[in-house]
Formats: sequence, C-alpha cells, structure tokens
Amino acid sequence: MPRYKLLIEYHGGAYQGWMRLPGLQTVQGALEEAAAKLDGGPVEVIGAGRTDAGVHATGQVAHMDLRQDRPNKVADAMNFHLRPHPIAVLKAEKVEEDFHARFSATARHYRYVILNRRADLTVDRGIAWRVPSKLDAEKMHEAAQSLIGTHDFSTFRDTECQALSPVKTLTRLGVARYGERIEFTCSAPSFIHRQVRSMVGSLVEVGRGHRPVKWAREILEAADRTRCGPVAPADGLFLERVDYGAG
Amino acid sequence: MPRYKLLIEYHGGAYQGWMRLPGLQTVQGALEEAAAKLDGGPVEVIGAGRTDAGVHATGQVAHMDLRQDRPNKVADAMNFHLRPHPIAVLKAEKVEEDFHARFSATARHYRYVILNRRADLTVDRGIAWRVPSKLDAEKMHEAAQSLIGTHDFSTFRDTECQALSPVKTLTRLGVARYGERIEFTCSAPSFIHRQVRSMVGSLVEVGRGHRPVKWAREILEAADRTRCGPVAPADGLFLERVDYGAG
Repeated sequence: MPRYKLLIEYHGGAYQGWMRLPGLQTVQGALEEAAAKLDGGPVEVIGAGRTDAGVHATGQVAHMDLRQDRPNKVADAMNFHLRPHPIAVLKAEKVEEDFHARFSATARHYRYVILNRRADLTVDRGIAWRVPSKLDAEKMHEAAQSLIGTHDFSTFRDTECQALSPVKTLTRLGVARYGERIEFTCSAPSFIHRQVRSMVGSLVEVGRGHRPVKWAREILEAADRTRCGPVAPADGLFLERVDYGAG
Repeated sequence: MPRYKLLIEYHGGAYQGWMRLPGLQTVQGALEEAAAKLDGGPVEVIGAGRTDAGVHATGQVAHMDLRQDRPNKVADAMNFHLRPHPIAVLKAEKVEEDFHARFSATARHYRYVILNRRADLTVDRGIAWRVPSKLDAEKMHEAAQSLIGTHDFSTFRDTECQALSPVKTLTRLGVARYGERIEFTCSAPSFIHRQVRSMVGSLVEVGRGHRPVKWAREILEAADRTRCGPVAPADGLFLERVDYGAG
C-alpha cells in the first residue's frame, strides 16, 4: 500500500481539535472521511501535531496509506471530497513506507498572533487574539529568551497532558511587533499539551507590566502549573511547519 | 453639534455593501444604528468610499454629527453598540465642522489579495480570491503600469456606475508576489464603480497568459465595457486608507 505525505491547512474554529473522537467534528475525522471516499474504504490519517480545539494550521503534516497508487491527483481529489470543510490539502506526495508524520518529525514550528488594540476584531475575528491593554513586545521577547533550552516545562503543561515527561527542549521563542500586530514564533522538537498557549499567556502578563521580565524564568523554575499565567485562547495559534530529517 | 471623524474596519462578507438600503444589512446602516443608540436619536454616518457588497475595509473613514460632546469614549461606545457586527471603530476624533469624509478626501487606497494556489482557502476564506492557474505577477505589474495616469476608464466601469464622468486619475497600481500571495495596491483621488475589481480581473487575464501585456493598454484605450476581463470577486478587496489634506 503506497504511503502519502500530506501538507495540510485548516481553520480550527469549526473543530474539536485534530484528534478523531466519536460524534465530534475533528480535523482528523474530516480528513479520514474524505480519504475513505477517495480510496473506497477506511483510511487512517496520522498527523504530526494533535492540535487542540480551535487551533489552526497552515503547515500541518500527516500521512496515510492508500490501497491504490495515485501518482498525481491525491491533493485535488482530497480537496474535492473535503468540501465544504475549511480544510485543504496543499500538497500530497508519495513517501517511503517508513515515513511517519508524527514519529519522523524533528521539529514543530508554531506562530501565535495577537492584535494589540481596543477595537473588536473584524476581518481577523477567530484568527487572532485581541489584547486591549498596551503590551511591551520587547519585554516579552526578553522574558521569552529565559525559557529557551531544555527544562521541566510543568508550569506550562495542561493538567490533561498525556506526555510521559514534562521535560522538553525549546529552541526558539521570539516576540516581534508589526504595528498593532504582535507575533510569537515558537519552535521545538516537540511540545507538551497547551505549552505554546501557556507560555504566550504568561508572557502577556509581562507585556502588560503586571509581572517583571524575570518572572517568566521564576515560574519556569518552580515547575508548578499553578504558577502559570492565564492560558492564551486558541484563536491566535497556528501550526505553521513541521520538519523532517536530520536538518 | 460636534462632528466626529471615524476610522473604520469591517468584514464586508455579511453586508450588501456600505450604503444604507431599506431592509438590507449594510455597513452604513449598522453604524447609524449604533450611533443612534449612543446619541439617543437618529445620526447620519457619511463614508469616504461606498464599498460594494462583500468588499472589506481596514481603513474606511466616515464622519457623523452627534448632539452631545463626548471627548474620549466615542470609539469604545460605538464598538459596544456595534457588537456582534464584524465592524469596528478603530479611532474617533472631533474634527472641524467643514470636514467631510467623502468630499474632503484627497486619495483612496485599495488592496486586492489573491492566493495563487490550487487548494481551497481555509483561514483566508472570504478575505482573498483563490486563483488556481499559475499567474505571472511581473507581467501583471508591467501591464498595470500602462493604466496609470488620467484616462477615460469606461472599460473598467460597472454599467450601474452613477459617477458623472468615466475620466479618473490612477496614481498607483502595483502588483507584487509574496509566495503564493499576490497583492495589488491601487491608489487614486477617486474611483468609479467596480474599477479596482475590473482592473484586477483584466490583469489576471494577462497573468494567466491568456492575453499579452500590451492588451491592458488596448482595452483601456478602447473605452468599451465589453472589452473588460471578468470582474474579480469582492472577497479579495480591502479599502485600506483614505487621505485628507493637500498632502
């Protein structure tokens, strides 16, 4: 059975997250339904990142095994069967049988978007977090640097997280302002549950001036979930890229 | 009666355009309802640009006269009364009585966004035009330059246009590619009805390779509506800025 690697984009607002769950609208569920129509029988679609309810993706990766070899038209055919879901297969390619979207991934890259303004969102509604109080992006960036490295991230770990260990290696956490837009770029080989939104929410406490820059490191070192700031909403989070291979 | 200048953003997808029309959802209608609640009586809201059904704005400008002087809270109060409309007042300021959002405007700036890809839109659905066939942005930019200047724009004028003259001065029409995203930036003191979407739609014919670069100038000079390319959809169009004053 040929294995296909899919590059996937979706608006997470309509879904109870990536993972298939009986009776709920999920991204994996919608993709598996489309793949079943394409292939004439049940297909499992395995994703690199199990994004949470409401979280978006512009570069999710998944793999699936089809009964039939379909050299060219897999992305178009998937998109045909996915309509009207806000889920699109940007690219589909045949890969080696040992490629695994989740276990072969070497890095995940997320983006978090804040619109730092008083007025309600209109064209960006559902795809950004509006924060009305003035944020200091430079202080947030400085605080973010103290989270980089290999640490026990228990403070930034959801209580429902099923990962075996809270120890993760954060390789990048940048914060930059473009007008009213503030973007967080966050990379790691892997993340624990709600880690990005927990870090963003805590950094926003620094950005508001409620907490000093050094507080971010203090709560990290406490390794205590009760020390985390308010978790940032799903609307602003995008799984942007997944890397494979040694590079 | 104090006059206020409003900077307004909206998602046009829910509206039959800017202009108040009985029994229809319009941006002006929603703003006037909110202003009436704020001011305790009917208020007229006059916009700089009467955007069409489905067209968005990130920098529409309007003015209104209120019965009461409200030094600080006009934007917040308008936004409160506008909810849940995808319309937001980004800024409100008191201006001289002779300021007129439409007649005092010296330039209007529009942006048009194309996503040049095969896959359906997800996070950008409703706020961009998807064009599946490969577009040559450089050729479109070259063709666009031949439209700049003062011309009879009848070719790019909707048959329902109520402007007195089809002669307009186009000061800028740039086309640039950023990955799969192609952006048109378009400026003029004023536009005729559907001019931007008519020009974008015609330039896309050049970008696809269906027409040569010189065709844009040929159809302009014909001054004949039947020579226009297919009008681009409203989804991708944003009124981005309105200028006032001699500058």
